[in-house]
Amino acid sequence: MMKRILCALCAGLVLGLAGQGLAEDSPEKLVKYRQNVMKAIGGHTGAIAAVVKGEVAFGAHVANHARGIKDMSLIVSDVFPPNSGPMDYADTGALPEIWEQPAKFKEAITAFQAAAAKFADIAESGDRQAIAAGLGALGNSCGGCHKPFRQKK
Amino acid sequence: MMKRILCALCAGLVLGLAGQGLAEDSPEKLVKYRQNVMKAIGGHTGAIAAVVKGEVAFGAHVANHARGIKDMSLIVSDVFPPNSGPMDYADTGALPEIWEQPAKFKEAITAFQAAAAKFADIAESGDRQAIAAGLGALGNSCGGCHKPFRQKK
Repeated sequence: MMKRILCALCAGLVLGLAGQGLAEDSPEKLVKYRQNVMKAIGGHTGAIAAVVKGEVAFGAHVANHARGIKDMSLIVSDVFPPNSGPMDYADTGALPEIWEQPAKFKEAITAFQAAAAKFADIAESGDRQAIAAGLGALGNSCGGCHKPFRQKK
Repeated sequence: MMKRILCALCAGLVLGLAGQGLAEDSPEKLVKYRQNVMKAIGGHTGAIAAVVKGEVAFGAHVANHARGIKDMSLIVSDVFPPNSGPMDYADTGALPEIWEQPAKFKEAITAFQAAAAKFADIAESGDRQAIAAGLGALGNSCGGCHKPFRQKK
């Protein structure tokens, strides 16, 4: 019985069901994972921006992209565990301030989550004006982390 | 009244509510949009693969990424309109066969959509073994387009 519980626990750990980076995850893999999360957000956001700017006529896709961003906003606070900063792995644009100012960082993430949730609702409505305004607000919330907590590109 | 209908129609066209690329969309913008859709899919898929390979312990994120891929699978058939091929814009890896063999291309997309929907269900279950197997099937369905219809990298 105890063995079965331990096996289940072990399987849970391997798959990381807690949704938290473990101490044994290497900084390199954690950063790579984080970059894939950001890549997904970037793809969705770039696609929405192209629609809003009128570059392409794919208005019906906005809600799909918006759901993707919202889903990523819900996991983004997990992808900055302690051993994934520039002090652990050089090839990241993340600044030490993320770990030095956790309350300020958390606040910025919470704002992004709120903006992403709101934008997903707006996107569902299909209201063009509201979508354009909502994208601006969403972009500002991205800047809430990217400006103070990411290296200038 | 007629004016109001026309305005609504116009707004719908500008936002592309039909979800179809319009003839006036430039090949460059269409390709760029498509690349953002693929970037989102690539980010989500790379993240899932890292979890399945045990590189990072973010098993609880898989369902979020899987929903994103499913949502993109539902729009991917829109992003290959006639004026977005290599004959229209050089900077694309899309091959002319996409437009020359539309039935075969559509079949590959349908298979991707089915695999993405199935994987999203599996991901929701949290079953580690099924997720690993499902990712293989999903990857094969990506290859269903990327092998015959995309330039070798």
